[in-house]
Amino acid sequence: MKLYTSFGPNPAVVTAFLAEKRQALETVRLDITRAESGQPSFMQKNPAGTVPLLELDDGTYIAESLAICEYLDEVLPGPGSLIGDSAVARAQTRMWLRRLDLHIIQPSSYGRRYAEGIEFCKNFRQVIPQAANDFKLMAAQGIKWLDVQMGASKYICGDRVTLADILLYVFVEFGNVNGQPIDPSIPWLSRWRVLMAGHRLAKVLHCDLPSYAAAVA
Amino acid sequence: MKLYTSFGPNPAVVTAFLAEKRQALETVRLDITRAESGQPSFMQKNPAGTVPLLELDDGTYIAESLAICEYLDEVLPGPGSLIGDSAVARAQTRMWLRRLDLHIIQPSSYGRRYAEGIEFCKNFRQVIPQAANDFKLMAAQGIKWLDVQMGASKYICGDRVTLADILLYVFVEFGNVNGQPIDPSIPWLSRWRVLMAGHRLAKVLHCDLPSYAAAVA
Repeated sequence: MKLYTSFGPNPAVVTAFLAEKRQALETVRLDITRAESGQPSFMQKNPAGTVPLLELDDGTYIAESLAICEYLDEVLPGPGSLIGDSAVARAQTRMWLRRLDLHIIQPSSYGRRYAEGIEFCKNFRQVIPQAANDFKLMAAQGIKWLDVQMGASKYICGDRVTLADILLYVFVEFGNVNGQPIDPSIPWLSRWRVLMAGHRLAKVLHCDLPSYAAAVA
Repeated sequence: MKLYTSFGPNPAVVTAFLAEKRQALETVRLDITRAESGQPSFMQKNPAGTVPLLELDDGTYIAESLAICEYLDEVLPGPGSLIGDSAVARAQTRMWLRRLDLHIIQPSSYGRRYAEGIEFCKNFRQVIPQAANDFKLMAAQGIKWLDVQMGASKYICGDRVTLADILLYVFVEFGNVNGQPIDPSIPWLSRWRVLMAGHRLAKVLHCDLPSYAAAVA
């Protein structure tokens, strides 16, 4: 297998997932600031032009970070599943992945793409600058809603760390250096960030953040 | 198991999925126009206040239509998986689910909620009316992009019908009666809609569409 990756939160989700699985893959790093993912040679591999992209040994391509992580969770060895070890556990992880995505990750991404990231994003996506502030507000409200739901829970799905924690951690930390600073007064989020910072994934993620902040500045 | 449902596209995804699996569940139908899903008794079950919601026999709740479908696919008998029979097949279905969601379903939903659906949605969601037209345009462009990718493919993931087809079919048909009419000049979509109309899911879906169109009018 070969992983096409770059900087930014979506590739970082897969990188962080692999770190937490204690696994490594052969990696090809693209410079998306030079639009390498939009070149015909890459668009043949992934017509959506997005990284990360996983190339299987038989030439099959799997795009989209959450689909890649689900696949890697099934096929890689490692110290246990990061989705869940039973149908119910997997369902709860996927429910939370979806809630995070709808209430926090997508609004936060729209907020970034239509404001700080607009000069970069307008080259290859439709942008809606008049919606940027509303989406940032929606993401901030989503975080507050999550905080209430989590109460005393250790991780998002109870005592087990899952892809849901990885997804949220990556986007929250990237947002923090790029226009959506973390509100330190949110109690569950603050405790959970300390916990997550002790995981292996935090090391690979925090290596990437300074170069990300510089590239988007 | 017990399924809490209502009208509208998200509940219809699970209903259509069950029809295609040739399965039925005990169902509780909520009137979301009377905000029954926002009542404290329901919010205790699902603090996001959304339907569909699946109640398991041990009292566990699973929300979010895609998470519910993944769970039902794992635990129900039926004529084969609608996600995939191998890790690669499942990854391809999930990749397409994600692409559909990002490029078509979410933009289309925002377009509807912030325009035709705004009087209803503003009671329980933040709305961004100044973004409605741009999101409708984004969804329409997403459909055109998909059309090019599909070429001569029978279903979205080749010869097998999957949850990706169900998701797209439900949202396209609901959009068609509610402010996002289907462009009949799109070749793959037109062929695929004829094919999908012959599936069991189409019968349950089209029963729901007139009442939906009336309720949102």
